[in-house]
Amino acid sequence: MKVARPEIRSFQPPVRTLMGPGPSDVPPRVLSAMARPTVGHLDPAFVGMMDELKSLLRYAFQTENELTFPVSAPGSVGMETCFVNLVSPGDKVIVCINGVFGQRMAENVRRAGGVLVIVEDPWGAPVDPAKVEEAFAANPDAALFAFVHAETSTGALSDAATLAAIARRYGALTIMDCVTSLGGVPVLLDAWGIDAAYSGSQKCLSSTPGLSPVSFSPAAVERIRARKTPCPSWFQDLSLVLGYWSGAKRTYHHTAPVNPLYGLHESLVMLAEEGLEAAWQRHRDNHLQLRAGLEALGLNFVVREDARLPQLNTVWVPEGIDEAAARTRLLQEFGLEIGAGLGVLAGKVWRIGLMGHSSRQANIALCLAALKTVIQR
Amino acid sequence: MKVARPEIRSFQPPVRTLMGPGPSDVPPRVLSAMARPTVGHLDPAFVGMMDELKSLLRYAFQTENELTFPVSAPGSVGMETCFVNLVSPGDKVIVCINGVFGQRMAENVRRAGGVLVIVEDPWGAPVDPAKVEEAFAANPDAALFAFVHAETSTGALSDAATLAAIARRYGALTIMDCVTSLGGVPVLLDAWGIDAAYSGSQKCLSSTPGLSPVSFSPAAVERIRARKTPCPSWFQDLSLVLGYWSGAKRTYHHTAPVNPLYGLHESLVMLAEEGLEAAWQRHRDNHLQLRAGLEALGLNFVVREDARLPQLNTVWVPEGIDEAAARTRLLQEFGLEIGAGLGVLAGKVWRIGLMGHSSRQANIALCLAALKTVIQR
Repeated sequence: MKVARPEIRSFQPPVRTLMGPGPSDVPPRVLSAMARPTVGHLDPAFVGMMDELKSLLRYAFQTENELTFPVSAPGSVGMETCFVNLVSPGDKVIVCINGVFGQRMAENVRRAGGVLVIVEDPWGAPVDPAKVEEAFAANPDAALFAFVHAETSTGALSDAATLAAIARRYGALTIMDCVTSLGGVPVLLDAWGIDAAYSGSQKCLSSTPGLSPVSFSPAAVERIRARKTPCPSWFQDLSLVLGYWSGAKRTYHHTAPVNPLYGLHESLVMLAEEGLEAAWQRHRDNHLQLRAGLEALGLNFVVREDARLPQLNTVWVPEGIDEAAARTRLLQEFGLEIGAGLGVLAGKVWRIGLMGHSSRQANIALCLAALKTVIQR
Repeated sequence: MKVARPEIRSFQPPVRTLMGPGPSDVPPRVLSAMARPTVGHLDPAFVGMMDELKSLLRYAFQTENELTFPVSAPGSVGMETCFVNLVSPGDKVIVCINGVFGQRMAENVRRAGGVLVIVEDPWGAPVDPAKVEEAFAANPDAALFAFVHAETSTGALSDAATLAAIARRYGALTIMDCVTSLGGVPVLLDAWGIDAAYSGSQKCLSSTPGLSPVSFSPAAVERIRARKTPCPSWFQDLSLVLGYWSGAKRTYHHTAPVNPLYGLHESLVMLAEEGLEAAWQRHRDNHLQLRAGLEALGLNFVVREDARLPQLNTVWVPEGIDEAAARTRLLQEFGLEIGAGLGVLAGKVWRIGLMGHSSRQANIALCLAALKTVIQR
């Protein structure tokens, strides 16, 4: 053989406490579900589970949208699925940028051939509705409007209801990134009038990374059906995916990631057992407790109080602290992962996640004690 | 709440024996790996595992290609990743169609804006090198050549070495689908001169579905670097993905599917333990045994003997048998999944997989006994 057999053994991962911007701690129930026996992706039992998944996701998103399902790939693909299906070449799209994921939305619009109108806000600030209103006044022909509900790169929460209402007044459809918000703070697709939304499995749902729940309103589906050019992506073309995820006869499209879908199903069953309101309350309560501890350590929040995500706490790294060295100590000495800054915040902030199963007392206690050790001089 | 909490319990899948065209049976070692504790996608321990995965995949593909890694999505995305990166609008691409997956390759070329030249062979036949030679003679300006090594829709194996040599003579790069071949029959990327290849985790590797190992030759990487238009897909843009899967500093691109990668790693460690040659031999031996049993039952193969895939046995459904009803009986009475026909073979054939962990004595015995029951009149 040209390439020799490598001497590599089974991988035994270390046990970590995950308090970064995702993945969050995966509860044992979900890990067990991942190890259940694999069945075929067209097995009647599996198709029944897919239907349950859609119901569970409709509850999590608070929507009656028929087209609600998990894309068989990470959140970035959920994002791209929204843009490549809804944006045709030449369509004008207003995109709000207040962090990394707004930038990525803009990049998606460019690659889909859309005409981009950017609304910018400082990193760490929520999207300013007044600027969105201005952008629409100057571009009343915009067909689509896109914003990030919970900016994972900064920890800022934007006012989705107000933003979507502006778009609706101008007759534009709204695309919302709720990767980090779903399950942690209210996400009310139908009440807010969101036309397309995508999330991730590994944030407040606390499933393993790799799946992206999405939901499309009837108006979005109508727009997709009316496309004049084919979707540039075969895999993401919703007119094809639909045949597998809905309809009387399930047509083979691609082989679904069977075991990760077991995991997502289990995490959504757990969310339904707890109840959405209780989950939101837990995230708020634990945030307040962590906040008190962080402030007692002299750490300051990047985001102003009324726009802070309870599930993602971004604080300035104190002066004189080597932020990367501190995170390495947290990982090596305490098995604790917190997040670094991205983009313009790289090297300047820490992002501390309290998402899903990570949002609990024991994690807060560990995090505060460990942080105290590494920042004391 | 607008959408009420659904009353849905944990999903307990039935235990099946998977002898369709994939997924194949997942061995307990791989299922256990799926349930190991989730770590962060930038954790040093995880990055070490990623490096091991690349080595293990280079062994499986028999290549020294630096750019060898698993795409974080099913095989269809591996396919699309090859086409959206290598095909620029206007590029001429010769695509061989002898089943569903050749058709899908052609569809990918169309969506990428390529100029398509189709070489057709009957379903069930391998790709005819003489027709490929003719296509190149008529289209010496073709930049790319694409074919399916092991057609999952028919069970036919094509002569990859001969086909790739023709393309090389005409200066075209070769893209090969080895979704069903990798691990079951020889796949020798470097010896054959394949420039881009994609596979799936759920066939002869016997991991869970959802990941797509890919590999790109230096010439393919050079072609990608020389692109004048950006890759239409953000997620699949290899110039971006590269920063995460290689290089000294691993840059965040997307959140990798951590636990499924544990599973793939484990399945590749098992393949290396067995050894590639031993795995190929096992697939051949078990095929011969199944073949004898199928022929004793009076079942006839669709593919001529010298082009049969040992891991995917396609037989004509005997006259007078309701093929769907027979599969339902196999599933309900024996917990056995075999595959139906696709496309022009729908309703006419069964596809019996002996892939990876499914290629073993106990499965053959079960399959033959169960088939005998449902086809006896």
